[in-house]
Amino acid sequence: MSSKRIAGPEIERLIQLLAKVPGLGPRSARRAALHLIKKKEQLLAPLAVAMGEAVEKVRVCSTCGNVDTSDPCTVCTDPRRDGATIIVVEDVSDLWALERAAAINARYHVLGGTLSPLDGVGPDDLNLRSLVSRIAEGGVTEVILAVNATVEGQTTAHYITDQLAGLDVKVTRLAHGVPVGGELDYLDEGTLAAALRSRTAF
Amino acid sequence: MSSKRIAGPEIERLIQLLAKVPGLGPRSARRAALHLIKKKEQLLAPLAVAMGEAVEKVRVCSTCGNVDTSDPCTVCTDPRRDGATIIVVEDVSDLWALERAAAINARYHVLGGTLSPLDGVGPDDLNLRSLVSRIAEGGVTEVILAVNATVEGQTTAHYITDQLAGLDVKVTRLAHGVPVGGELDYLDEGTLAAALRSRTAF
Repeated sequence: MSSKRIAGPEIERLIQLLAKVPGLGPRSARRAALHLIKKKEQLLAPLAVAMGEAVEKVRVCSTCGNVDTSDPCTVCTDPRRDGATIIVVEDVSDLWALERAAAINARYHVLGGTLSPLDGVGPDDLNLRSLVSRIAEGGVTEVILAVNATVEGQTTAHYITDQLAGLDVKVTRLAHGVPVGGELDYLDEGTLAAALRSRTAF
Repeated sequence: MSSKRIAGPEIERLIQLLAKVPGLGPRSARRAALHLIKKKEQLLAPLAVAMGEAVEKVRVCSTCGNVDTSDPCTVCTDPRRDGATIIVVEDVSDLWALERAAAINARYHVLGGTLSPLDGVGPDDLNLRSLVSRIAEGGVTEVILAVNATVEGQTTAHYITDQLAGLDVKVTRLAHGVPVGGELDYLDEGTLAAALRSRTAF
């Protein structure tokens, strides 16, 4: 917007808020706002309702830490899922990403971050205690640590392994290796070394 | 989302609707939805309210065809604007673009499209009649045709010029030429020819 007002405060506020949505910037927020205004009945009104409903209904699952409109969440209450396997992820976005892969039929546990002493994030700041009690309740045979391959992620993985040491559960982690479709030339030495170490029969 | 449900219907609907916002696709809609859910109080709730207000208040200005939350719109009621100059644009987005340039202090008239006989768009489908009556009321000395430099835009410009022929008003159009910052090598012949014809003293 220029310094001169060209639209009512409601529209300017809509643009300002849309600009904060990831994927939209100030310029695309204007374009988005105009599109929404033009498609008032087909898009803007339903979106306003959907957002209002989400505000009202979204909560954190008290079992696994996922966000959903029900507690326990859709994943925790799905009877077709294998409750014996729990995949530990840092964030809800990781849960969604793993579900897109559609490779496993498990339950999840969302930590809500990683241990990071430098940033003042300790075990009590994460959804860790409930993971231990979930496993202690029994019925879980495998915990897959699907944390990011960063220093913080790996630190968190080690901490969780320690916490689960006394319990009768297998702890595994995601394989390191060459991404499918990836070119060796562009991969870092760490990944290549890991891929070599974990080579499989052809 | 995979075929298996991983979130309540409210969240899936939110993602579906966000995916229809220009600038967001299915993947970034998921990311946006998750971000909005996490920032429920700071972003999602205000955005829901802002959209609801826009749905309720947005209307088309009966004077110029702009969309705004008031009728007449903010531009038409701005006392600091020069009412003697009217800039004719195809779309509200063009009005916003010209305002960003902050080069002129005029009023606008939004056609809502261009004449396109092949698509069945005739004069009565555009906001044309009200333009003529606006000029006929007097007080306007110049009409700037800021339509796109497309065949349809130019056809519309000629039609408007004809309609305004009997009225005491100067009709002008935007200059053709080299875009500021543009490289000659990448410009089409038509633009270069126009830029040469309209060359100015250095």
